Amino acid sequence: MASAGKIIKCKAAVAWEPNKPLVIEEIEVAPPEANEVRIKIVATGVCHTDLYHLFEGMHKDGFPTVLGHEGAGIVESVGPGVTEFQPGDKVIPLFISQCRECRFCKSPKTNQCEQGWAAHRYDAMASIATRFTCKGKKVLQFMGTSTFSEYTVMNQIAVAKIDPAAPLDKVCLLGCGVCTGFGAAVNTAKVEPDSTCAVFGLGAVGLAAVMGCKAAGAKRIFAVDINPDKFEKAKVFGATDFVNPNDHSKPISQVLAEMTGGGVDYSLECVGNVEIMRSALESCVVGWGVSVIVGWTELKDLATRPVQLMVGRTWKGCLFGGFKSKDGVTQMVKAYLDKKVMVDEFITHNMTLDQINDAIELMKGGKCIRTVLSVSPK
Amino acid sequence: MASAGKIIKCKAAVAWEPNKPLVIEEIEVAPPEANEVRIKIVATGVCHTDLYHLFEGMHKDGFPTVLGHEGAGIVESVGPGVTEFQPGDKVIPLFISQCRECRFCKSPKTNQCEQGWAAHRYDAMASIATRFTCKGKKVLQFMGTSTFSEYTVMNQIAVAKIDPAAPLDKVCLLGCGVCTGFGAAVNTAKVEPDSTCAVFGLGAVGLAAVMGCKAAGAKRIFAVDINPDKFEKAKVFGATDFVNPNDHSKPISQVLAEMTGGGVDYSLECVGNVEIMRSALESCVVGWGVSVIVGWTELKDLATRPVQLMVGRTWKGCLFGGFKSKDGVTQMVKAYLDKKVMVDEFITHNMTLDQINDAIELMKGGKCIRTVLSVSPK
Repeated sequence: MASAGKIIKCKAAVAWEPNKPLVIEEIEVAPPEANEVRIKIVATGVCHTDLYHLFEGMHKDGFPTVLGHEGAGIVESVGPGVTEFQPGDKVIPLFISQCRECRFCKSPKTNQCEQGWAAHRYDAMASIATRFTCKGKKVLQFMGTSTFSEYTVMNQIAVAKIDPAAPLDKVCLLGCGVCTGFGAAVNTAKVEPDSTCAVFGLGAVGLAAVMGCKAAGAKRIFAVDINPDKFEKAKVFGATDFVNPNDHSKPISQVLAEMTGGGVDYSLECVGNVEIMRSALESCVVGWGVSVIVGWTELKDLATRPVQLMVGRTWKGCLFGGFKSKDGVTQMVKAYLDKKVMVDEFITHNMTLDQINDAIELMKGGKCIRTVLSVSPK
Repeated sequence: MASAGKIIKCKAAVAWEPNKPLVIEEIEVAPPEANEVRIKIVATGVCHTDLYHLFEGMHKDGFPTVLGHEGAGIVESVGPGVTEFQPGDKVIPLFISQCRECRFCKSPKTNQCEQGWAAHRYDAMASIATRFTCKGKKVLQFMGTSTFSEYTVMNQIAVAKIDPAAPLDKVCLLGCGVCTGFGAAVNTAKVEPDSTCAVFGLGAVGLAAVMGCKAAGAKRIFAVDINPDKFEKAKVFGATDFVNPNDHSKPISQVLAEMTGGGVDYSLECVGNVEIMRSALESCVVGWGVSVIVGWTELKDLATRPVQLMVGRTWKGCLFGGFKSKDGVTQMVKAYLDKKVMVDEFITHNMTLDQINDAIELMKGGKCIRTVLSVSPK
């Protein structure tokens, strides 16, 4: 491309400071350096984790930044040493890398990677290196990705090449929410056939967890949310029972224990609330119940009585659904194209990057499952 | 026996109320009812859980009681319907039952059993049914066992028949401490060969956990205790590295991370302290670290930041080392006779039942690993 090797000036939604609307700015995106790939972002989802950083995370050293970590795009140019990608490839940027060389990548037990964003900056949720500037200031890349920009630059270990047939305005959701929930059920909880599951929180991640439980063969899937409007959607993804904690005076763990004869085999917390994490754990049956934390929060401690674990429950968590990121996204895109997983059904709104603040308001108000923003023209 | 079918009057150490010395009393032990076995206790260990109930548990409805849950004895008589046992059998009373018929017993995943003490009275640590009276009052059977008595009565689902060659004054420790620690490493953590482990707390349970890690093939076993006098003993059981948290100004999780290049693969908390439970979890490597809670406490919540689990750690716990109780004890007694597990090495003191309050003082002061009391003459 004619732009290769040059700085690209393009549009991005910049978060200058916490708790303020994003500002559409012209930013400068430097060319990719060694082992890096510059990507034209075609579409991006808006995820709660973006809002979390903006409104709740309060990482004061994480600004200014470009949010967005659930995107899909097309390779514009590559830096020295990149052999896996070439301009024109359809790709999904990854907030967890897969270097294939570290002890984590070499183990089948985990999707953590010693390289990349996740190893370094959980505290600020932003990569150390950034290729963005705006008005003479360095602008951080949130979660290393920054998909609320027409262009971004990623290390090749954090980019998944996907099937050229994939519609980017759909599969962008496989960059975070859908894989996060689906994988939590399939990879981390390892839901077994004929088991009983409960999913707490029916946003995109929770609905994807429901879909994962069903794919794994669960016979009963309890969908738990205080917003009963979400139950209809949960049914689409495979939920069989619906519980609104507001309908019960008892703790929800007790309600589920009564409905299941002792508790569920698996529970998945898809909210990011430490009280709900406790409920989810305590909703599991003694002996073998497994509870997985999927929703992100870092402001508070989770808690429970030790005996809740000593009677045989297991408490786990995952990032990105436990998927090895490159391999997982490529496989999930294929599964979508093969109609084995749903993606379109998560999308309730389509907007453009200019409407980002409207999309954020929709999400804050719980009015959407996922809004997909078109960023650059295809 | 001539005593069969009759009430037996015998000696027992009665805990009339919390925080008071035990009192050696004459109690009445009723004959076994249907499916029950009356056992002459020959020897018993004194375990921290006994002290926990007496001094810290504050279950006011759990008194008067006869403590003791780590004993071994000989069947005196059996009630109707008992076919597995006959008078003269050497046995170990179990605080977790194994009915072989419930959904837990039928699953390989757990040692919980829907029958028996554990299912009913965690709150008071005492069985609902008791065959003891003293001075006209009902006396509870602590943990269903009550081995600080010359005779006790158990349901047959909570008794393990053991090899007649087994020395009861040694294998009594397989009724709790040794199995609890050993099994936590082998059954619950599922320690893998060549892995790195850390054991927090070097009482009998912790030392048994060290022995379990070694049996499972761990290549480095960190023994962690604020009492360095315990390190020599830990070495006997297989510990390779010794860490006294008082020697370090940094959090112990950070010390272990530095010593291991990121954290241990497995950690076992054998103290029963929620702050140490947190340290043990956070001492595990991200990606696949597994932390097991072995030490009993029920007064406080454990806590950690959710991200500590989301990066791939697993928090588990177990009772009785995850051993299916009858099967496990029988096997462990055989392993002891085959010299595959150590038991004698845990015993630092031998006393008689009359000296129970001295034994309790020794344990409170951390002056012993295990004291074995001879109860009835063999």
